[in-house]
Amino acid sequence: MKALVYGGPGQKSLEDRPKPELQAPGDAIVRIVKTTICGTDLHILKGDVATCAPGRILGHEGVGIVDSVGAAVTAFRPGDHVLISCISACGKCDYCRRGMYSHCTTGGWILGNEIDGTQAEYVRTPHADTSLYPVPAGADEEALVMLSDILPTGFECGVLNGKVAPGGTVAIVGAGPIGLAALLTAQFYSPAEIIMIDLDDNRLGIARQFGATQTINSGDGRAAETVKALTGGRGVDTAIEAVGVPATFELCQDLVGPGGVIANIGVHGRKVDLHLDRLWSQNIAITTRLVDTVSTPMLLKTVQSRKLDPSQLITHRFRLDEILAAYDTFARAADTQALKVIIAA
Amino acid sequence: MKALVYGGPGQKSLEDRPKPELQAPGDAIVRIVKTTICGTDLHILKGDVATCAPGRILGHEGVGIVDSVGAAVTAFRPGDHVLISCISACGKCDYCRRGMYSHCTTGGWILGNEIDGTQAEYVRTPHADTSLYPVPAGADEEALVMLSDILPTGFECGVLNGKVAPGGTVAIVGAGPIGLAALLTAQFYSPAEIIMIDLDDNRLGIARQFGATQTINSGDGRAAETVKALTGGRGVDTAIEAVGVPATFELCQDLVGPGGVIANIGVHGRKVDLHLDRLWSQNIAITTRLVDTVSTPMLLKTVQSRKLDPSQLITHRFRLDEILAAYDTFARAADTQALKVIIAA
Repeated sequence: MKALVYGGPGQKSLEDRPKPELQAPGDAIVRIVKTTICGTDLHILKGDVATCAPGRILGHEGVGIVDSVGAAVTAFRPGDHVLISCISACGKCDYCRRGMYSHCTTGGWILGNEIDGTQAEYVRTPHADTSLYPVPAGADEEALVMLSDILPTGFECGVLNGKVAPGGTVAIVGAGPIGLAALLTAQFYSPAEIIMIDLDDNRLGIARQFGATQTINSGDGRAAETVKALTGGRGVDTAIEAVGVPATFELCQDLVGPGGVIANIGVHGRKVDLHLDRLWSQNIAITTRLVDTVSTPMLLKTVQSRKLDPSQLITHRFRLDEILAAYDTFARAADTQALKVIIAA
Repeated sequence: MKALVYGGPGQKSLEDRPKPELQAPGDAIVRIVKTTICGTDLHILKGDVATCAPGRILGHEGVGIVDSVGAAVTAFRPGDHVLISCISACGKCDYCRRGMYSHCTTGGWILGNEIDGTQAEYVRTPHADTSLYPVPAGADEEALVMLSDILPTGFECGVLNGKVAPGGTVAIVGAGPIGLAALLTAQFYSPAEIIMIDLDDNRLGIARQFGATQTINSGDGRAAETVKALTGGRGVDTAIEAVGVPATFELCQDLVGPGGVIANIGVHGRKVDLHLDRLWSQNIAITTRLVDTVSTPMLLKTVQSRKLDPSQLITHRFRLDEILAAYDTFARAADTQALKVIIAA
C-alpha cells in the first residue's frame, strides 16, 4: 500500500509498505477513506518529537471503513464506517477511568508517532472498541476528519479548560486551524466577546466569518492594550494560547484578567517565562492538556444537530499520491491560505 | 496609642499615634486584643510591597472588641468580640459578588498596606459588616488570630485550588506557617499521602506532629526523585508551593503528576521558568490566588467542632510594647523555631 513515511528531520517520502495486520485481540484494521495533515506532523518533521522514529508512517486523523477486527473487538465489524481518534485509549487503566485518555498507559497519542499512522491506505488501530467512533448515517464523512483531533483539541484544551461561559470574555491567540476550532466550539457557551488575535489578516478575516466578535492584528505589539480597552481595563476571563511559542504565551499573561484562565493548547518546544511576581495575587489558572478526545461523541452530536460545521475548516483537497504537494500547501499556509487539507486515500 | 510603624525599607519603629476615627458609614473602630506578624510584613520591610508607603501602621491580622461603628454598620455593635479578616470586602462590587473578595474594588488586602493596620491598640476596619466576623462564644480568641490570614490562605490558595481529594497525593513545599496551615486543612479531605518538603528538620518534625505522612529534607537536591518513588513514579495529584522563590516553584513542576495541580501560595518577587516544553501535554493546572477569606465562616466552624486546632501554630507571645523583639524572634525563625508569635495589645 502507499504510505507517507517519516525519514528523520526534514525528510519524508511516499513509499510502498505492506498492509498492516492485526497484532492484538483489540486491534482493528481500517481502510482509510480520508485523512489530513496536522501541525504536529510538521513538528515531527522538524525533529521536535523524539518518540517518533524514522520509518514511521505519519498521520493521526482520518475516517475509514473497518477491514478486519481482532477477537476482542465487539463494537465494530468489517464494513463499518468509522472515525479514527488521534488518541488510542484502552478504557481500563487508571488514567482512562478518569477520562484522561491522553495518558492511557498502553495508548495515548501513539498513532503516527509510536506506531504507524493514517497517511496510508490502511492503518492498524489498537483498542478499537474505545478509540474508533461509528460514523452517523448520512454524515459528511470528509468533514468528520476534523473530529479526529482538531475540534476536540480546540474544545477540550481551549474551551473546556478555559471555562468559557455565558457572558464571559475570551481571547484566542492564534487563528490557525486549532485556534479556529476553539473559536467555533467556544460559541456553544455564548460568551459575550471572542477576540481573535493573529499576525495574518487573511486568517483574522476567516475568524470574523466564523464568529469572532473582534479581531486584532498583533503585529503592532499593542494587542494587550487593545484587549484591555475592550474589557473595561480588566482583561479577559479566558485567554486561549493556540500557537506554542514564548511570545504568544507571554501575550496571554498580559491579556488575562483577575480570576481568569490561560488555557494552553500550543505544543511548546521551549520553556517560557511565567510572571509570578505579578500573577501570584491575580487568582488565575494556567492549564495544559494533551487532548483526551472524551468530547468526541458530544462533538459528533453537535455536527449532526448543525450546531457545528467542521467542513468550514477544509480549504484544499488532494489524492494520497499527491500527499507531498499537500504537505507543501499546508506548510506554506501564509501563502496558500490553507487551513486543513483533505487527502483521499 | 502605641503602633508599629513602617519607616521604609529595613525600618520600623514603635510610635505614639492618634487613635483612628470613623471615616465612612461602613467603618468600625476595633480595639485590638491580640494581633500577630505575617511573613508578608517581612516582605514589606524588605521593600517588596510598593503599595505600602512609609508611615503605615503594619498588621492585617487580629481579634478585638468593637469600639464604635459607622451609621451603615448593622451586623456589629460596640462591645462585640470580632475576628478581623486580612481582606476588606464591600460585598457589592462585581468581584465580591463572585466571591473574589481579594479583588474588591474598594477593599482587598488594604489593611496594614494601603491603610493603617492591626499592630496597634486600635484599628479602623472599612466595610465592617462584611470584613469582621463574630467570635463564637467560648472560643479561644488568641487561636482565632490564625484565621485572619494564615488558615484561609493555606486552605483557599493551597487546598481548595489544589483540589485535594480523598485518596489523593499531596506534596507541600515549605513547612513554614502557611505550609503548615495547608497541611492542617488538607486533612479535611482525607488525602492518602501528604508529603511535606523543607530544608529545616525542626519544621519537618512539626509537620509530622501535624499529620504529614512523609517528610523530605530537600537539602540533598533529590526531593523530586523521592516523591516520584513514593507515588509509583507518577508524581503527586497536588503540589502546593508555600515559599515563593523560583527554586521551590521549579521543584513543584518536577513533583506534579499528569492531571495534577500546582497550587501556588507563595508571594513571588521574581518571574520563574515554566517548562511548557515538558508540561504542555501533562494535563496540569497551575493556580495563583490572593486569599479571598470566603472560607472564614467555615473555618470558624471547624475550630468550634475541634476538627482544627489553630493554637498549635502559636509558639511565642509578646506584649505590644515588646513588638520589636517579636519581629526579631519571627524573622529569625530558623534559630528561634518560631511559627506564629502572638502580640497582646
